[in-house]
Amino acid sequence: MSDKEIQSDKKMISENDLLSETKAETKAEMDTISKQILELQEKSELTKSEKRRLSRLQKKVESLEAQQEEEKEQYHRDIYYMKEAIRQAKKAAVLNEVPIGCVIVKDDVIISRGYNRRNTDHSTLSHAEISAIRKASQKLNDWRLEDCTLYVTLEPCQMCAGAIVQARIKRVVVGSMNPKAGCAGSVLNILQMKEFNHQVELVTGIGKEECSDLLKVFFRKLR
Amino acid sequence: MSDKEIQSDKKMISENDLLSETKAETKAEMDTISKQILELQEKSELTKSEKRRLSRLQKKVESLEAQQEEEKEQYHRDIYYMKEAIRQAKKAAVLNEVPIGCVIVKDDVIISRGYNRRNTDHSTLSHAEISAIRKASQKLNDWRLEDCTLYVTLEPCQMCAGAIVQARIKRVVVGSMNPKAGCAGSVLNILQMKEFNHQVELVTGIGKEECSDLLKVFFRKLR
Repeated sequence: MSDKEIQSDKKMISENDLLSETKAETKAEMDTISKQILELQEKSELTKSEKRRLSRLQKKVESLEAQQEEEKEQYHRDIYYMKEAIRQAKKAAVLNEVPIGCVIVKDDVIISRGYNRRNTDHSTLSHAEISAIRKASQKLNDWRLEDCTLYVTLEPCQMCAGAIVQARIKRVVVGSMNPKAGCAGSVLNILQMKEFNHQVELVTGIGKEECSDLLKVFFRKLR
Repeated sequence: MSDKEIQSDKKMISENDLLSETKAETKAEMDTISKQILELQEKSELTKSEKRRLSRLQKKVESLEAQQEEEKEQYHRDIYYMKEAIRQAKKAAVLNEVPIGCVIVKDDVIISRGYNRRNTDHSTLSHAEISAIRKASQKLNDWRLEDCTLYVTLEPCQMCAGAIVQARIKRVVVGSMNPKAGCAGSVLNILQMKEFNHQVELVTGIGKEECSDLLKVFFRKLR
């Protein structure tokens, strides 16, 4: 990675106030158990049952440490792929299209990319997510994208959120939210409705500053 | 039209218990005004003001008659185009795909057709409505399908309903409803949410018996 890229990476992480490298629940559990261990260790002598308990707790700590390690890795992978989605969004901006970009990842490999080309293509189906879903299905030769993660710089609209559920995408990572029209939690949360036959794992706010800055700059130029 | 077609036309109209050729509200208004006219006509002599009122009511009846005539024409056009959508659905059945068909109409001309080819194309974007929307945009060279009516044999899913709103389609006519997954009134009504920047005129139940019979026969064969 170049210096500039590392700079941008740091910006994306530090400005993200909603997320941290590890999950809050995992941290909280770790804190509770560490406290229990400390209490036991402070005693001058331990009963047999206390010794067994201490050993159990120490094993639990090890497993939580491994989990946090995974969460960290996941977080940095998410930042990495969101940067790829942002790269796609910039292609849209070059065409004077609203800068929204998307990549779909399977087994830690990008299998398709897309960016908004609605005006260029004269088609409402040229949203970033729909283009990426179309290409991913072509690549996998399957309408089911079950083990895929979709990264998108802006919260999906009702059509794209619907397509994500229809394609049974496993996980969606969103950059900035779209309070007026987004359907991954803002107006609706189509991705996680229990009424439908598929629900999506959802992470929001990854790289949100950089994603929304792109949009702000674009709309400022328009005025 | 052949005898068989007329037969099917009659079946579609007579079995449709939700709809009639003219709207219930128009009929109700007509009844009220006709009663008022009758009351005035039964009087032996009318004052000047009553005469003026009678004339106004008679003009209103004429305008309601014209409106009912339009509603009748619209109803028969809807039946006609739904039959075209059913023809598309039958193409899907031939490919062993769930039989769902769609046509898009502008200025009383069919501008695009589509039918479900999800398994054949290995793409979730090959729903009948999405295919028809894609072709309509190609034809009009515009992502906006503002003066179009979309006819579809089954209530649209979340993706297709979303695409209809995104394409700003004016009017949607649905055959049979899909209580478990439909998004034009069953699970959600994405077509008419005031939160979005476009709402669609919606008519449901046109040709619903024939549309749902197609599906029943298809799923019976599968078992």
